Amino acid sequence: MSSFTAGIIVIGDEILSGRTQDSNSNFIAKSLIKEGIKLEEVVVIKDDKKTIIDRVINYSQKYSYVFTTGGIGPTHDDITSESISEAFNLVYEVNKDAFKILDNYYPKGEFNESRQRMAMMPNGSELILNPMTAAPGFKIKNVYVLPGVPEIMQVMFLELIKKLKRGKPKIVTTINTNLYESKIAIFLKDIQDKYKDSSIGSYPYFNLAAKTGGVNIVVSSWNMTSTQPVVDDIINMIKLNGGKSSIV
Amino acid sequence: MSSFTAGIIVIGDEILSGRTQDSNSNFIAKSLIKEGIKLEEVVVIKDDKKTIIDRVINYSQKYSYVFTTGGIGPTHDDITSESISEAFNLVYEVNKDAFKILDNYYPKGEFNESRQRMAMMPNGSELILNPMTAAPGFKIKNVYVLPGVPEIMQVMFLELIKKLKRGKPKIVTTINTNLYESKIAIFLKDIQDKYKDSSIGSYPYFNLAAKTGGVNIVVSSWNMTSTQPVVDDIINMIKLNGGKSSIV
Repeated sequence: MSSFTAGIIVIGDEILSGRTQDSNSNFIAKSLIKEGIKLEEVVVIKDDKKTIIDRVINYSQKYSYVFTTGGIGPTHDDITSESISEAFNLVYEVNKDAFKILDNYYPKGEFNESRQRMAMMPNGSELILNPMTAAPGFKIKNVYVLPGVPEIMQVMFLELIKKLKRGKPKIVTTINTNLYESKIAIFLKDIQDKYKDSSIGSYPYFNLAAKTGGVNIVVSSWNMTSTQPVVDDIINMIKLNGGKSSIV
Repeated sequence: MSSFTAGIIVIGDEILSGRTQDSNSNFIAKSLIKEGIKLEEVVVIKDDKKTIIDRVINYSQKYSYVFTTGGIGPTHDDITSESISEAFNLVYEVNKDAFKILDNYYPKGEFNESRQRMAMMPNGSELILNPMTAAPGFKIKNVYVLPGVPEIMQVMFLELIKKLKRGKPKIVTTINTNLYESKIAIFLKDIQDKYKDSSIGSYPYFNLAAKTGGVNIVVSSWNMTSTQPVVDDIINMIKLNGGKSSIV
C-alpha cells in the first residue's frame, strides 16, 4: 500500500445530467498511479454548497490529497471556492496575487466584477497557476482546487503534481489471453491466494459480433519489488489450459 | 424536483487505477434524466467488501434507486453480489432461475464451478436478464446490480428502466453563444434570481489554438411547465450584449 492516498471530487450538475462525460478523474487517476499515490475514491456531486462542504471535509480527513474539479469560474453556479472556504471556516476573500495575475491578463477595463470573482479564495490559499487562461486554482490544506475544462485542468495538474510528496509507484503488468474468464477463474484465485501482496484483476471483454473475447489480467502491487513470479505463474497457467497469452 | 432520485456506485479498481475510463455512469445519467429520475451522486469505489457494503447501505437509504456496475463476474475479484447480500443481511445463495439460465446457455459440461458463482445472489433477488451473455444481474430492495462491460450493461439497463416508476422528465434547453462567460455572468445571475424554479448552468469552452471560445448555457427545470421565458430572457440578454446565440 502506498503511504499516500487521494480522493477526487468532481463538482458539476453537467456530469450528473449526462451532458458531459467526466474525463478529468481518469486523467488524474492515471497520473497518480505513476507517482505512487493511491486513488481511493472518486465522487461526482452536484453544484450544491452543503454537498460540497460535506464531501470536502470528509475527503480531506480521509486522504492525503484531495483534488476537486469544476465550479471555479465567474458565474453564479461557480460555488466551489466559497463552499471550500466555509468547509474550513476560513474567510472567503480576494487573493491579492490572483487579483494581480487576472488584472494583468485582461485588457484594460475588462477585468470586471464577474472576473474578479475568480480571485476570491479561502484565506491562506496557495495559487495553482494557469498558463492557459490565467484564472488560477488553489491549494488549501490538503485540497487542490482545479477548473473543470479538461485542457486547462490537465496543464495545471501536471504542474502541481511535481510538488507532491509521493510513494513508490505501483508495479502494474497486464496479461492478455484468449481464454474466457470462467475457464481460468479458479486457477487465478489460487494464484491470488498464493501472492497476497499483489492484486490480480480480471477484466473480460467480448467482441459480440465476432463471437470472440478474452480477458485482460492485471497484476499489480504497491509492496513487492517484482511481480514477475505472479506473472510467470499466470502465463504458465494459461499455457496449461491451452490458451495464448501476451504482455500488453 | 423529481420525486424520484438515484445514485450510481461504480465498483472497480480498474477505474481508480485509470486503466478504464468509466462510461457506464454517463450512459445511465443520460437515460435517467429522460425518465424524470434525478441522479444525485456517482461514486467510484474499489473492489473492497467493507467499502461496497457501506456505500450500498448509505445510497439505498438516501435515494429511490441505486445502480451498481461491475464485479458480478466469475472471478475472485467479483465480490459485489456477496457484499450486497451482507449489506442487507441476506443469505448469499444460488438463485435457481439464474442457475437454470446459465446451465442452458453453456454447452454441456462447461457450466463449471466459477460460472456457477454467477448464479449466486442475495436471497429474494429479482433477476435482470442479460440477452447477450446470459449471466443475469439482479434487483434487491431498491438496488439494481449490473455488470461492468458497457455493451452488456447498456442492454440490461434499457430493459430494466422500462419497469421503474418515474417522474416528469426534466425540461432542458441549451443555448450556445460566442460571448465569453465573464461578459454575461452578472446578467445570467439576475436571470437565475428571477426564475428560481429553473436552474441555469454556464459551461465555457475554449478553442485555445484558434483563440476563440464561448459558452453553452443550459436551462433546466423539473417543475416549470415551460422554460421558454427563461430562454427568451437569456437570448435577449445575449443580443443586448452584442452576441450571437443559437439553441443547440
